[in-house]
Amino acid sequence: MPRASVREQIVDAAFEQFHRHGYNACGVKLITDSAGVPKGSFYNHFESKEALALVVMDRYGETRHLDKLADASKPPLVRLRGHFEALGQDIEDFGYERGCVYGNFSTEAADHIPAIREGVREALDLWTNAITATIREAQEDGSLTSAQEAEILARFLVNAWEGAIVGERAAKDGSSFATFFTVAFEVVLR
Amino acid sequence: MPRASVREQIVDAAFEQFHRHGYNACGVKLITDSAGVPKGSFYNHFESKEALALVVMDRYGETRHLDKLADASKPPLVRLRGHFEALGQDIEDFGYERGCVYGNFSTEAADHIPAIREGVREALDLWTNAITATIREAQEDGSLTSAQEAEILARFLVNAWEGAIVGERAAKDGSSFATFFTVAFEVVLR
Repeated sequence: MPRASVREQIVDAAFEQFHRHGYNACGVKLITDSAGVPKGSFYNHFESKEALALVVMDRYGETRHLDKLADASKPPLVRLRGHFEALGQDIEDFGYERGCVYGNFSTEAADHIPAIREGVREALDLWTNAITATIREAQEDGSLTSAQEAEILARFLVNAWEGAIVGERAAKDGSSFATFFTVAFEVVLR
Repeated sequence: MPRASVREQIVDAAFEQFHRHGYNACGVKLITDSAGVPKGSFYNHFESKEALALVVMDRYGETRHLDKLADASKPPLVRLRGHFEALGQDIEDFGYERGCVYGNFSTEAADHIPAIREGVREALDLWTNAITATIREAQEDGSLTSAQEAEILARFLVNAWEGAIVGERAAKDGSSFATFFTVAFEVVLR
């Protein structure tokens, strides 16, 4: 098997290091050291740390279990729960560390770096749209009786999930995720 | 009037700089430069940047409008809405930048610095307890009919607010706060 290209090694390392340390604490040298490539090689492949962060966000998006929302073999609210359960399991597997790349980048970098702010906004919108479609299905098949607009419920849930991560990183005991599932599925999605 | 002590100047500057730049991007030199004091004076007053961050978190707590929750002249749900409106106004006044110090520190530093993690956890618990008491009052006077445990609703709302800030820092258009108010007060607190 051919060895991963230098570019690929850098993206893999950046995915790990940005997620673990956040945007500001993760410099180009940490990324290239972690990738096992010379620091000088970085700028052959990326214009800036910021440009690499956008590539990492795209790759992170592919791991966000959006496929679970589209699985037509299950009822919409079952899919939605499975989607959030999978997201929660990923974070539990990291000991409630690392959080969500979108939330991390929004918190750390959106104020100061327009391209990252725009990347996060687009990623959250894409995610919200997928949840909106699922909620709309549940409204159409009658499993959700709430007359509240699907898009408003979806935006609220995406944000509430990001906030549950904030709470969980402080408590690291599962309490904020448990609270999310109770209120989201027993109160909001009724 | 006596001049603010060096310690006080450092705390004032740190409050501003941590809030604006986050934990990792804000070093001791940025704080002392911003305070207009020699970098060397820092360690006469604080053992570490981490120790100063805990002082800043305490001071931030005093600005979180918890007094609005205790104002017995208004019905509990009116107070609760006023509390979140005041928090939102503070963030809007900063152009949807800076976010919440608790959320920022949880996201950036809780994984790596146990004292900060514990400080954020305590601050979120204190805030949750104040909201729990307000929700319980609303359940007792019948203005809230939800039988869901007050503490679960309170924890959920605190996290949902933190997440609304994550969304707002990316969109900076008020949409996440508007969504929070709609779902929190029309759906969750019914």
